[in-house]
Amino acid sequence: NKQDPIQCREENNTAAQDESVRVSGRITESSPMRLRMEQFIKEKQQEICKALEDIDGNKFRVDSWKRPEGGEGISCILQDGNVFEKAGVNISVVYGKLPPAAVAAMRENHKGLEATDEPLPFFAAGISLVVHPHNPMAPTVHLNYRYFEIENQDGTPRAWWFGGGSDLTPSYLFDEDAIHFHKTMKNACDKHDRRYYPDFKKWCDKYFYIKHRQETRGVGGIFFDDLEDKTPDELFSFIRSCANAFLPSYLPLIERRKDMSYTPDEKIFQQVRRGRYVEFNLVYDRGTQFGLNTPGARVESILMSLPLTSRWEYMHVPKLGSREERLMEVLRKPKAWV
Amino acid sequence: NKQDPIQCREENNTAAQDESVRVSGRITESSPMRLRMEQFIKEKQQEICKALEDIDGNKFRVDSWKRPEGGEGISCILQDGNVFEKAGVNISVVYGKLPPAAVAAMRENHKGLEATDEPLPFFAAGISLVVHPHNPMAPTVHLNYRYFEIENQDGTPRAWWFGGGSDLTPSYLFDEDAIHFHKTMKNACDKHDRRYYPDFKKWCDKYFYIKHRQETRGVGGIFFDDLEDKTPDELFSFIRSCANAFLPSYLPLIERRKDMSYTPDEKIFQQVRRGRYVEFNLVYDRGTQFGLNTPGARVESILMSLPLTSRWEYMHVPKLGSREERLMEVLRKPKAWV
Repeated sequence: NKQDPIQCREENNTAAQDESVRVSGRITESSPMRLRMEQFIKEKQQEICKALEDIDGNKFRVDSWKRPEGGEGISCILQDGNVFEKAGVNISVVYGKLPPAAVAAMRENHKGLEATDEPLPFFAAGISLVVHPHNPMAPTVHLNYRYFEIENQDGTPRAWWFGGGSDLTPSYLFDEDAIHFHKTMKNACDKHDRRYYPDFKKWCDKYFYIKHRQETRGVGGIFFDDLEDKTPDELFSFIRSCANAFLPSYLPLIERRKDMSYTPDEKIFQQVRRGRYVEFNLVYDRGTQFGLNTPGARVESILMSLPLTSRWEYMHVPKLGSREERLMEVLRKPKAWV
Repeated sequence: NKQDPIQCREENNTAAQDESVRVSGRITESSPMRLRMEQFIKEKQQEICKALEDIDGNKFRVDSWKRPEGGEGISCILQDGNVFEKAGVNISVVYGKLPPAAVAAMRENHKGLEATDEPLPFFAAGISLVVHPHNPMAPTVHLNYRYFEIENQDGTPRAWWFGGGSDLTPSYLFDEDAIHFHKTMKNACDKHDRRYYPDFKKWCDKYFYIKHRQETRGVGGIFFDDLEDKTPDELFSFIRSCANAFLPSYLPLIERRKDMSYTPDEKIFQQVRRGRYVEFNLVYDRGTQFGLNTPGARVESILMSLPLTSRWEYMHVPKLGSREERLMEVLRKPKAWV
């Protein structure tokens, strides 16, 4: 019985100010971070969709949507393509009001955020992506980067932070793929802070953990939230490095694996692993839970992360010494890949 | 971060007393309800498995398990059979201790249950069943009946109740099937209390509601919990009537539908509906959530309710005037079937 955290857009003055800048078409380095982030994720969405279309040979379906309570987005989905079973690349931009209870909950991770008696305006913008290939040798990948801001009633900033990450979920593990993916993310992180990759790698393994199965969702990557330990410009630069690392981290893997041969049993194992992906996303993922609990949210965009097909076999146990068993070992005990 | 509600079995004196009766083999109408319910659900499990095996031509796999923290059960699964994609019939019998916080939470629905400063012994026994047929014309069915008891430290009863129900989830709706299923359940209820069916039919529609989709999981049936409005003997008699009504409520439907012809598109729609079944069970079902949050619980038994295969299509919208659309209308606005 959570309260709707998002209220009428018309009450948010920042939204109106930003709209006038947007209409002028002049978003520069001195514009509010809201507009810079929005511009960046929209560009990224187009670039990534284009690159995935080139591999698949099919076009993304593009749906623009507005939520009456405030918020809009663009959902791009490529379903049942030549290479991809399902690929979704979403962006959303939301102006709204946060109830005092929601602000209070956020204070745990943002000591500088003062308590409030009345709802506060907020802004959130993010890009979110999940790619499930057909071929069981080709890994699933997920990415999400977001910017969040809370304003005072008069529109001055009260708190802001970045969050996000990217992680890889193979059904058949090729060490070289996991190493390439992690190395690419580490390089993106190292340019900004040498502590980021080790910290965010650990955070990723911890976050994408399917507790009831005692296994991680995949071989990880990076994950972080509530990031406010540098200036907004510095962190925006970090976020861009991460998002820019996506295509270099994933395209070589999909190119290598998309046409490999596989057996019917290997397809079945992929489907069982897809089932675990569904379990994580529906039972544990905070973004999914927040989305499903938000009245009027666009459910089809939230659940684009679910695979086209999946499978639950009773007591599926990989054979001793098999590739499937090796994967399970790595999922039960995450490895250091770089 | 829920606490483990189930503690060491050895501390539960009732368990030891019951075991001596069990070993004597003399369970009568004057035995504790714990043992009568256990005996009943074990008989039901065998009877139902036998009836489903006769239809399918394959045998159930039978797994007996014990949970080190206390509790045991028998899981019977028939997977990828001739008629059934997946059928699971589980029973479980648990003796344990409830922390004071768990007792406090239960007081909301049991005004007579006094608060406690120390853990209290409890007993729970239940039968749980889900059947997913291959043929999209044949409906999925679910059943669950359970008895719960809380004892004082000295073993005298402090509170007890029954819960359960049974509901039908067709992919292709045949009104006659829904009517037969509801009529059979209504007859079972009416023998005990004329208010039961109307009340529990409403409760069922309310409970099996997929909030984020704004639709029910299926065409309902009956659902009730915390039932303590008659004597234990009267309610046990009611529970038996309900459980005994299962085979008559479902067998005629599976017989009628299991060999019907269907198109690939109809199979796909069934798979999409299976996806919704997964959404309900993983996001909303209280039994599943409790199970997944119980350390050491047998996950494979809890998740036997999930279908063997399922599907998530982006923006699946049934054609105007189609059978698929008719089903969606009924799921959005539950009907009175009898």
